Amino acid sequence: MRKVIVDINGGDNPPSEIINGAIDAVNRRDDLIVILAGQEKVINDTLANLAYPSDRVETLFCEQIVTNEDSPTSVLKQKKESSLIKGMQLLSNRDDIDGIICVGNTGAVLVSATFIVGRVNKCRPTLATKLPNSKGGYSILVDCGANVDCKEEHLIGFAHMGLEYAKALNISDNPKVALLSNGSEEKKGNELVKNTHQLLKEMQDINFVGNVEGSNCLSGNCDVIVSDGFAGNILLKNVEGTAKMIIKQMIAEVNNATDESEAKAIKKLIKRLMDKFDFNSQGGAIILGVNKLVLKAHGVADRTTISASIDMVCSLAENKLIDSIKASI
Amino acid sequence: MRKVIVDINGGDNPPSEIINGAIDAVNRRDDLIVILAGQEKVINDTLANLAYPSDRVETLFCEQIVTNEDSPTSVLKQKKESSLIKGMQLLSNRDDIDGIICVGNTGAVLVSATFIVGRVNKCRPTLATKLPNSKGGYSILVDCGANVDCKEEHLIGFAHMGLEYAKALNISDNPKVALLSNGSEEKKGNELVKNTHQLLKEMQDINFVGNVEGSNCLSGNCDVIVSDGFAGNILLKNVEGTAKMIIKQMIAEVNNATDESEAKAIKKLIKRLMDKFDFNSQGGAIILGVNKLVLKAHGVADRTTISASIDMVCSLAENKLIDSIKASI
Repeated sequence: MRKVIVDINGGDNPPSEIINGAIDAVNRRDDLIVILAGQEKVINDTLANLAYPSDRVETLFCEQIVTNEDSPTSVLKQKKESSLIKGMQLLSNRDDIDGIICVGNTGAVLVSATFIVGRVNKCRPTLATKLPNSKGGYSILVDCGANVDCKEEHLIGFAHMGLEYAKALNISDNPKVALLSNGSEEKKGNELVKNTHQLLKEMQDINFVGNVEGSNCLSGNCDVIVSDGFAGNILLKNVEGTAKMIIKQMIAEVNNATDESEAKAIKKLIKRLMDKFDFNSQGGAIILGVNKLVLKAHGVADRTTISASIDMVCSLAENKLIDSIKASI
Repeated sequence: MRKVIVDINGGDNPPSEIINGAIDAVNRRDDLIVILAGQEKVINDTLANLAYPSDRVETLFCEQIVTNEDSPTSVLKQKKESSLIKGMQLLSNRDDIDGIICVGNTGAVLVSATFIVGRVNKCRPTLATKLPNSKGGYSILVDCGANVDCKEEHLIGFAHMGLEYAKALNISDNPKVALLSNGSEEKKGNELVKNTHQLLKEMQDINFVGNVEGSNCLSGNCDVIVSDGFAGNILLKNVEGTAKMIIKQMIAEVNNATDESEAKAIKKLIKRLMDKFDFNSQGGAIILGVNKLVLKAHGVADRTTISASIDMVCSLAENKLIDSIKASI
């Protein structure tokens, strides 16, 4: 039986949307227990209108809420009764729980996971995400925003954790690991990247394929893209921003269509591309390097996303991602 | 009268393509003299087949060629007879020449411009480019790849030069300057960005609008995006890479069209988007911070691009970009 905590607070949608996503998952799979963390009245009122197996839905009532305005470190002291902190504590204390899904304040999720759930072998926890690629699959980007100032040893850690993550997602048995840089040649990069390149080259346990440029990150030629969290975040957000700009331009072209059938063809194409590049359904980012599975869903996460995120936690638990990371770093 | 040197060597196309672009420009505008720098036989053979005003086409014969394999610093000593080095020397020695267009080895162009044409007030020269934005205009990205390890004072210099460039391109009279970061909030960024943010905030002569995220670089909400050359290069190439991936996906959808008219509509849309996002026609990147106009066209530059790049040099010379930069830093 898999057990997953769902923090009902945070993100752009109301808690009822998150709760609905969790209930969808528990109704869909009979190997799952979900633990809803949040305000008693909100949870009870929402559940009152839903059908679900009551023996597989647990609750963790807590009345405080972490907002995007809270500074990540202050949360540990000032929001002790929040669904985020109480959820992390429960996750840390109980061996039978696989992971937690959070939608809110990324910094607060990262800090509470690091200090409450705890780090693996004193490593630097990192945030990894999936980028859709031209081959119809995904590549892992690690770090995508957690650690903006990095040293060589941090990037090496990200490489190890990213490749275990790629394996656990069944992206590849022997993931190709690349280093994000301003040129594919070995000598290209800032000091950090040039030094890390030399270290990765020497490592027997990493299938290092060299540098990858910003233009090739979506090519699918590598499975894991290693970066500091500053450049990684800019890359991730720019993929989304560029895709959005092009889609926006396409929508404008609907109005320039010469007839009804042309407009219809463009609309159909937009829908197909949006399904293809829907970052919302991809399960968000994961914190790697802590002792349990901690998933940070996108702020826009809806019912469908939450349900898919729970599947992802279950699948990563079955594939023993945490054990693999513990063994690798 | 405007005078522009064109280095016929480098890039993906043969020198004849570059020469044709230069001749197109000289035939199109009667205020222009072009100076073709390159091998005597190649220039003479190409010109023999072209019609042009012979009093406005000069030549600078030199037999060596700088390739992409040459290390940038070695070029100064080992390729003294190349079109690149000879061209830069001529540009530096003659007050009546406005600028040079180069297609090849970016590092070699940057090094030779810095050491031969010379720096403005001992500043750090930088590479700036135009990004198309959602508002139908352009935003300047500076640095897009020249300086991968930067200090605060370098980014401040890029901000000053970028805003003069935006003014000279008539993007705005009072360009909005933003700092590329992993979040829009003031406290977001790596150490370099956080420190630079505080300095830019204090500057009276810069219309600083705060941080810009990777997702908003194409929104047109800022006119100048300031970055170190590492993150800037990743951003620039990623815009191109993401756009290409989406176009590729659209091309694949032509085959999934249910009938001829749908396929035709998709093809028409692809063409319109490719015209819109054609980085090739945008005139390439410029080196800011040296004493003359040095334009580095994209490696794929063709006849049309070269001709457009010459227009750009003329326009920047008319708008006195170099004088503005000298006054600002």
